[in-house]
Amino acid sequence: MAAELTAPQLIAKHRPTLDQALETIRTRAYWSPHPEHPKAYGENGSLSLPEGKAAFDALQGTRFDLDQPGTDDWVGGEVSPYGPELGITYPHPDIDTLLPAMRTGMRAWRDAGAEVRAVVCLEILSRISARTHEFAHAVMHTSGQAFMMAFQAGGPHAQDRGLEAVAYAYVEQSRTPDAAEWTKPQGKRDPIALNKRFTPVARGISLMIGCNTFPTWNGYPGLFASLATGNPVLVKPHPRAVLPLALTVRIAREVLAEAGFDPNLVCLAVERPGEGIAKTLAVRPEIKLIDYTGSTSFGDWLEANARQAQVYTEKAGVNTVVVESTDDYKGMLANLAFSLSLYSGQMCTTPQNLLIPRDGIQTDAGAKSYDDVVADLAASVNGLLGDDARANGILGALVNPDVKSRLEAAAGLGEVALPSREITNPEFPDAVVRTPVIVKLDGAKPDAEAAYLSECFGPVSFAVAVDSGEDAVELLRRTVRDKGAMTVGAYTTSEEFSATVEETCLEECAQLSLNLTGGVYVNQTAAFSDFHGSGGNPAANAALCDGAFVANRFRVVEIRKDA
Amino acid sequence: MAAELTAPQLIAKHRPTLDQALETIRTRAYWSPHPEHPKAYGENGSLSLPEGKAAFDALQGTRFDLDQPGTDDWVGGEVSPYGPELGITYPHPDIDTLLPAMRTGMRAWRDAGAEVRAVVCLEILSRISARTHEFAHAVMHTSGQAFMMAFQAGGPHAQDRGLEAVAYAYVEQSRTPDAAEWTKPQGKRDPIALNKRFTPVARGISLMIGCNTFPTWNGYPGLFASLATGNPVLVKPHPRAVLPLALTVRIAREVLAEAGFDPNLVCLAVERPGEGIAKTLAVRPEIKLIDYTGSTSFGDWLEANARQAQVYTEKAGVNTVVVESTDDYKGMLANLAFSLSLYSGQMCTTPQNLLIPRDGIQTDAGAKSYDDVVADLAASVNGLLGDDARANGILGALVNPDVKSRLEAAAGLGEVALPSREITNPEFPDAVVRTPVIVKLDGAKPDAEAAYLSECFGPVSFAVAVDSGEDAVELLRRTVRDKGAMTVGAYTTSEEFSATVEETCLEECAQLSLNLTGGVYVNQTAAFSDFHGSGGNPAANAALCDGAFVANRFRVVEIRKDA
Repeated sequence: MAAELTAPQLIAKHRPTLDQALETIRTRAYWSPHPEHPKAYGENGSLSLPEGKAAFDALQGTRFDLDQPGTDDWVGGEVSPYGPELGITYPHPDIDTLLPAMRTGMRAWRDAGAEVRAVVCLEILSRISARTHEFAHAVMHTSGQAFMMAFQAGGPHAQDRGLEAVAYAYVEQSRTPDAAEWTKPQGKRDPIALNKRFTPVARGISLMIGCNTFPTWNGYPGLFASLATGNPVLVKPHPRAVLPLALTVRIAREVLAEAGFDPNLVCLAVERPGEGIAKTLAVRPEIKLIDYTGSTSFGDWLEANARQAQVYTEKAGVNTVVVESTDDYKGMLANLAFSLSLYSGQMCTTPQNLLIPRDGIQTDAGAKSYDDVVADLAASVNGLLGDDARANGILGALVNPDVKSRLEAAAGLGEVALPSREITNPEFPDAVVRTPVIVKLDGAKPDAEAAYLSECFGPVSFAVAVDSGEDAVELLRRTVRDKGAMTVGAYTTSEEFSATVEETCLEECAQLSLNLTGGVYVNQTAAFSDFHGSGGNPAANAALCDGAFVANRFRVVEIRKDA
Repeated sequence: MAAELTAPQLIAKHRPTLDQALETIRTRAYWSPHPEHPKAYGENGSLSLPEGKAAFDALQGTRFDLDQPGTDDWVGGEVSPYGPELGITYPHPDIDTLLPAMRTGMRAWRDAGAEVRAVVCLEILSRISARTHEFAHAVMHTSGQAFMMAFQAGGPHAQDRGLEAVAYAYVEQSRTPDAAEWTKPQGKRDPIALNKRFTPVARGISLMIGCNTFPTWNGYPGLFASLATGNPVLVKPHPRAVLPLALTVRIAREVLAEAGFDPNLVCLAVERPGEGIAKTLAVRPEIKLIDYTGSTSFGDWLEANARQAQVYTEKAGVNTVVVESTDDYKGMLANLAFSLSLYSGQMCTTPQNLLIPRDGIQTDAGAKSYDDVVADLAASVNGLLGDDARANGILGALVNPDVKSRLEAAAGLGEVALPSREITNPEFPDAVVRTPVIVKLDGAKPDAEAAYLSECFGPVSFAVAVDSGEDAVELLRRTVRDKGAMTVGAYTTSEEFSATVEETCLEECAQLSLNLTGGVYVNQTAAFSDFHGSGGNPAANAALCDGAFVANRFRVVEIRKDA
């Protein structure tokens, strides 16, 4: 078919962005081509907030047809954490038809080469970006994130992570030239000479298993890393968060077709309730790559059973903040209060355990006892969330009833320093909105350990009393080693103590944020600069995004002949 | 301790070589810093041939002490395939003492940084290079390679592969800067700013499981990739080929100590007969990386069971050459004859199945029937190996009795087109030297398939009669997909047929050599330019050497704080 989007057009349009991304992953400086402010959208073909809302509204109650081969049913039962049923149905796949169809376009996609694949991916991201306001509503009403967070994390930040993956994939495939002449001297005889060609080839079909809380942010890196390295991608969303990824798949298919490629290089697989289609797909011989974000139990299952595939997992961890001392007590409390509250603690990066010496800490506001610190943090959270409108804007809604159950059970685990409070969302009265609970635990008591050494996903934090800073570091080490951590935070004014924490994080392979008291939070990472996870502790076997995340998604085939 | 070799000295000495290696893995042009000619050695501190021989002789009958912690016994029973018992004993490890001791030096090795680690590795390689003649004898008398091959493949070519791995490791670790300043604009408010530091951290102890046939060539890539990325390396040689790796470990330990690092970053583990120490080591929690070359069964076992480690395997495959047509019949026959004969076919890259249309092929010397081609190839092998001295120089010795048994059994699998001939080695009368056997098989007969679709390691080739070129390609595809292949060769004058073979190799992920008729052979690859294996078919899950081979041997830990 004649391509509406030619390769030279796409290269001219997107190569500068790709080059800037390539430069930024080397410098790790700040950069993003995707505006973070809602008002930046609405011109140059992008949807404004009302247009995005209208587009989202128009999708509700419809059949989301993608014109995929092998659709044998229409399924879907998404209910917004804010209350409304979305009423959208999606294609359910006949796997035996869909998977072979996805392979059909692989050869042309391979022959297009790394640069064309990259700019096609950038065109997909660019069209997603133009519809950021539509995605914002889709993410909000599937994840329960508050609007502003759904807009930013589900929009520009997710697009950044996708672009970052494309950049890494491009670098990796460009390391080896397309062709080389090899001439070896033979002393007085004629040299021997070979012509060599090198072609990056795909692994096979890549399966992206999406999560409920960050369908785009956690999904885009794997999706784009695999697509950019030549692999068809089958997107299996979480059944509660289909729409953001269905929109993504639709846009990807449109762009692929317009660029002259087979749209079936990107397909959607939505499951019936309780079907467990991920388990079926994950062990299919056609599936050679799997990206997964979710529970440790299923992540471990994938790693153990999907032996025919490269498996990239982000699972659960127990994130720790060590509070040893600070020269900005108010800043620390404010920073922590926000970290605990944002999206009701439903981030894989939210701190769970705050390790505080039982004899208290030194601060710029004087010595503070353990009880002081906990009480002041509770007050800081109360202050942050005291206004219901602001609280709704920070907390969002609980994503599912399990989180609510865990939150309610947490109060029974120890002395409650800050009770969770129910907040009404006037616009969405059915939303379950709760402020975080902070529970005091004694780190020395064996029965407390069962609580603080398990991930308690949701707005639950434990203020764990420890014997000393050194004791905190030992518990930190044990926690990371045994349970994994996506993030570690620490507050200290001591260079020596700081060095100890740093060494522990280096040895246990955990990403560390030190003395954050301003507008950056331990639970946030920026694409092109921060690594999300380390890939070196039990919380995740991969990091977003590095060379290891892309290097094994393709192989290089060499064809050589006498020159 | 005060380092005798300082980092600046090592950088000054080796950085130019590293830079040239970095450049060459980008261009894939010819280059090597390690001379291939035996006479190039003997000056500037390197051993001449007689000095290398004397050094090798002096080792025999001795205890090879490495001053390693946790040595509980002295073991060793190497017998040269050329006859002599080496009589050398090596340290047997008390694993519970040795493994913790190997971790002691990790922190300093990490803190040294990627560049210092690289130049220390280059110093190790440089000292190995100076003793190439000693290694040549050690490789010859453990692998059974003829002297010239042991010298080249066990010396400069192995050193090249080690250097290549160091270069890849350095690139990968240098992608992310040591530090970055990140400043994000906040509209009218002050920007937010972070200082970030990035540190490559090791995975843990790396286990290198050596093979009998190419102890250094197949061992160095994993050894140096892991060491250069910060991991201690435990070298577990094949019990019949300990000496080349024991020498390597000794040199590595000397250099590490002189450079002020813990020599226990590189240790040797030699096993008692039948102990199977690799199986024990492979599942130890301290072992985080494994490099293995050897049988498919143990490689598969490692991949399935050493779940705590990243496992890089090179296993068995069935290498195929498709003979469809040629415009240089003599050149093709001569090239194939050498490929089948070199080291008695005991290379993982030696062609096993020659697929020849039963109706014959077109050549520059006229049409040739299947029988003609097979007979002419047999004659070419006979011509190559007709002189016993030259035959000994090409064939070397059979590495172990299993190869001899397979060779003898092969004659019963079909019509023998070229019988194997026993050759006497006047210098080493106990050496088992055999010319290759070529057996005719009918590709259409199911009972023949069992023979040609199994790896028959050693000097055994099957001339498989196929219905057509297309039939050959289908069998090639099936062979690579089901059995794997380290190499594929093809001879054709048809552009269309060539394209079909190329497409098949791209789809099945196999490295292809086309129409080789000169001094390059399908079973040889050159470091810095050719990939050894593809990592994408069952013969190997990794290629030597690419980004994927090094990228997951370390992780990057980020430490960030408010600027």
